[in-house]
Amino acid sequence: MKRDGRLARRWIATGRLAAAMAAVLFLQTAVGDTLTEKATETVLRRARLMERAGSGLVVLISGETKNFSNDVDYPFRQENNLFYLTGINQVGIALALRPGAQEPREVLFLPRRDPSRERWTGRMLSVEEARRLSGIWDIRETGEWESFLDAALSGKDHEKRLSSSEEHTRVDNAAADSSDLWLILGNGTALAPLFRRERVFADTLAARHPRIRRKDLYPLFRDLRIVKSAYEIGRLRKAIDITCEAHQGVMQKIRPGINESELDGFIHSVFRKHGAQWGFPSIVGSGPNATTLHYEQNDRWIEDGEMVLMDIGAEVDHYSADVTRTIPAGGRFTQEQKTLYEIVLAAQEAAFSAIRPGATIREVHNAALTTLKAGLLRVGLVADTTGNQYRMWFMHGTSHWLGLDVHDPGTRDTIFAPGMVLTVEPGLYIREDALDYLEKTSGNEKLLQTIRPAFERYKNIGIRIEDDVLVTQEGYELLSGSAPRTVEAIEMLMGR
Amino acid sequence: MKRDGRLARRWIATGRLAAAMAAVLFLQTAVGDTLTEKATETVLRRARLMERAGSGLVVLISGETKNFSNDVDYPFRQENNLFYLTGINQVGIALALRPGAQEPREVLFLPRRDPSRERWTGRMLSVEEARRLSGIWDIRETGEWESFLDAALSGKDHEKRLSSSEEHTRVDNAAADSSDLWLILGNGTALAPLFRRERVFADTLAARHPRIRRKDLYPLFRDLRIVKSAYEIGRLRKAIDITCEAHQGVMQKIRPGINESELDGFIHSVFRKHGAQWGFPSIVGSGPNATTLHYEQNDRWIEDGEMVLMDIGAEVDHYSADVTRTIPAGGRFTQEQKTLYEIVLAAQEAAFSAIRPGATIREVHNAALTTLKAGLLRVGLVADTTGNQYRMWFMHGTSHWLGLDVHDPGTRDTIFAPGMVLTVEPGLYIREDALDYLEKTSGNEKLLQTIRPAFERYKNIGIRIEDDVLVTQEGYELLSGSAPRTVEAIEMLMGR
Repeated sequence: MKRDGRLARRWIATGRLAAAMAAVLFLQTAVGDTLTEKATETVLRRARLMERAGSGLVVLISGETKNFSNDVDYPFRQENNLFYLTGINQVGIALALRPGAQEPREVLFLPRRDPSRERWTGRMLSVEEARRLSGIWDIRETGEWESFLDAALSGKDHEKRLSSSEEHTRVDNAAADSSDLWLILGNGTALAPLFRRERVFADTLAARHPRIRRKDLYPLFRDLRIVKSAYEIGRLRKAIDITCEAHQGVMQKIRPGINESELDGFIHSVFRKHGAQWGFPSIVGSGPNATTLHYEQNDRWIEDGEMVLMDIGAEVDHYSADVTRTIPAGGRFTQEQKTLYEIVLAAQEAAFSAIRPGATIREVHNAALTTLKAGLLRVGLVADTTGNQYRMWFMHGTSHWLGLDVHDPGTRDTIFAPGMVLTVEPGLYIREDALDYLEKTSGNEKLLQTIRPAFERYKNIGIRIEDDVLVTQEGYELLSGSAPRTVEAIEMLMGR
Repeated sequence: MKRDGRLARRWIATGRLAAAMAAVLFLQTAVGDTLTEKATETVLRRARLMERAGSGLVVLISGETKNFSNDVDYPFRQENNLFYLTGINQVGIALALRPGAQEPREVLFLPRRDPSRERWTGRMLSVEEARRLSGIWDIRETGEWESFLDAALSGKDHEKRLSSSEEHTRVDNAAADSSDLWLILGNGTALAPLFRRERVFADTLAARHPRIRRKDLYPLFRDLRIVKSAYEIGRLRKAIDITCEAHQGVMQKIRPGINESELDGFIHSVFRKHGAQWGFPSIVGSGPNATTLHYEQNDRWIEDGEMVLMDIGAEVDHYSADVTRTIPAGGRFTQEQKTLYEIVLAAQEAAFSAIRPGATIREVHNAALTTLKAGLLRVGLVADTTGNQYRMWFMHGTSHWLGLDVHDPGTRDTIFAPGMVLTVEPGLYIREDALDYLEKTSGNEKLLQTIRPAFERYKNIGIRIEDDVLVTQEGYELLSGSAPRTVEAIEMLMGR
């Protein structure tokens, strides 16, 4: 019996979470014309976002193509929140959602296809393709974008539809709240400047519709995106596996005399072999470069006896891994390197132990710190563990959230729940100039005397060990375990 | 005997071409403290630019860091013209030149170093390093930028200097022309929108100095950059050699069943092995994808019997190669592929023959076209060679200028002179939908009937052969000859 998916499509188009979930289930089980897993995801995400917004008009505009030089652009990458809701990585699209309003609640705007342009720059999505990717039924040309918004904000569209259609009944708060305009603004976050175009866009609309009230989608996305679905965890697993394969490959390929840039290129070739690319520019820092946290120059010749820190992450369907390994170029740790490495490793193990539902990044960080400080005292790099002396050698947080962004939205006080994914990445960076900038106080003079011998012994060593961890019901799952992490495992794979 | 370079430094600081050339020669031959080859270049470039500007204030501001997503940026790349004058690839710098004015004629502004920031994002240039790279003696902090410009534009700096210094004599036209403000604006070119920040900057200055007249540096840079020095040709040779090595490597590595993305990653790894990167995103188009000119998706599985078009270019010190090869995935051309390939190759040879001092890109293009059209008529893809029928299959120019930009500034009517570098890249693209968009005229109906059989035979084949050529006294030098180009040479290297 051939079942008909049209009813289910209509349920999806209501934009109500319960209806969308039922429709997805129906399509998956009963209809040949199923939604892809990816489209199912975006259908539910939009329904959840609309449920949280409650009412008003939700507007997301495409990211821009960024210029490299002259007529060459960087490869385009869609703004993550719009990608989260549509799965579409094409420039020039726009999305309007109307929670609480009558249909259409979801309208996607696509640039008009142009064969003569596509001959030059590649295929643009057809309506059918966009529908299949996003699960959005109502797709229009971007030329209609402004008039659609004007109608939606003035309520004219609402009235016209009401009189011309008998199928729909009036939705309670649609008219009253038609002046709420939801955009991503990132208010109160460091990211606010990235959403300048959204602000300009809101200004333009506000000039025509003085009654609109701007509302910030950022906190809604933060709360939605922080718990990952099975689909999302699958994407992250793939990105992390590819990244670990690159680390394994480097451990077998590296030798003294190689340049950081060659390792950088090799890592990227492993990503591309699997159809991935980088989620952030690779950090390949050898010797003293390992003590710069976000070193990206990657052009130094690596010498024997040095450590190489590689902080890398493949990105699969916009989901980024983030795994750091620090290895000896010659295959064997020196005594000093091993001593510091074991401290960082122990701190990471302590941090892992703190991960369970109900915990926070702050607690994970504190667990790492306790172990790290004890280790630093033992080797003489701090004089006591009560104050902030450790900050000379470890100056960043232990964890951040991971997802569509390598630094995914969320705070250090977000309560852990199953499905959240975070990094655990303690480090020690014995920068050669670290002591030069201490304030000249008598206390510091004494501190310098105490730690100088250890500093001289360990200076120019930088170590970070970073893994990706999924919060589970029972505690946590280490996702990046396939890249060797202990001194023994690294030396064994390097085989020297 | 230890010679002193200070006098030569003073000559350079005059910003006069003759003095700068003498100083460079003196430093190179007589003084231990020589300028690097790169700094020598930039010294002479600035002197030449000032000579052409004649008077006024020349202002160049750094490019911006472009955002990838959230707090991740693309690797920074300096705006090419500022790089051309300074050799410095650091964000946040600015350059002021004052042709015809008294010293200092060249002032470079650097962001203040900040050890706590460098710990995070890497070393910033010191004054000494910036001096060594650029050959500019007078280096100041960016905090002084605005007051410097205000003084220069209001002539106050001029008067103050005159009264406080006895060494300098008044320069004729400095005061009179202090209101000429030179910036890159790209007026009348398609690139004008890229220089929005320069326009905003000029507006800001104009608000404080209503007398300034804006002048566009773009034509000056175009004329300077189009003839390459020995140093520049050396950089281009290196970039081209690396690119050809990547092509050779692909010819040995490729096999049916591989993904375009893996070849893309392999190519990039060859670039990075030599410390280079891409000058534009690689195009790796297999089968029908080869008929899209700027295809960048690079994610298709390559099948036996297909051709793969690779349009790639390594970039060395901002100088970009641009070399295209189209090869059979399985190592042997089919009869159809070979037939079209030989037409394109013959067109390229015809184009080469037209290259000599005094010729133009337009003439090179016409030489390619004559051969190409004859070939298309022979195989039945056009019905006659008098009109524009060939444009269905070849719709781009044969050549562009090559340098700091892969599409370097210059026109198709620029008269060839030794030291100019251009590409020669005829192609044929038998797009599957090419005939669908012909106007429905009776003439076209007849044309369709005539060419349909050939179209069916050759459809979905895309071929481009692109080489980089230096104009010499005698004619030209093929710079990219080390990547096999003929059917025989390609099949031999592929060894199947």
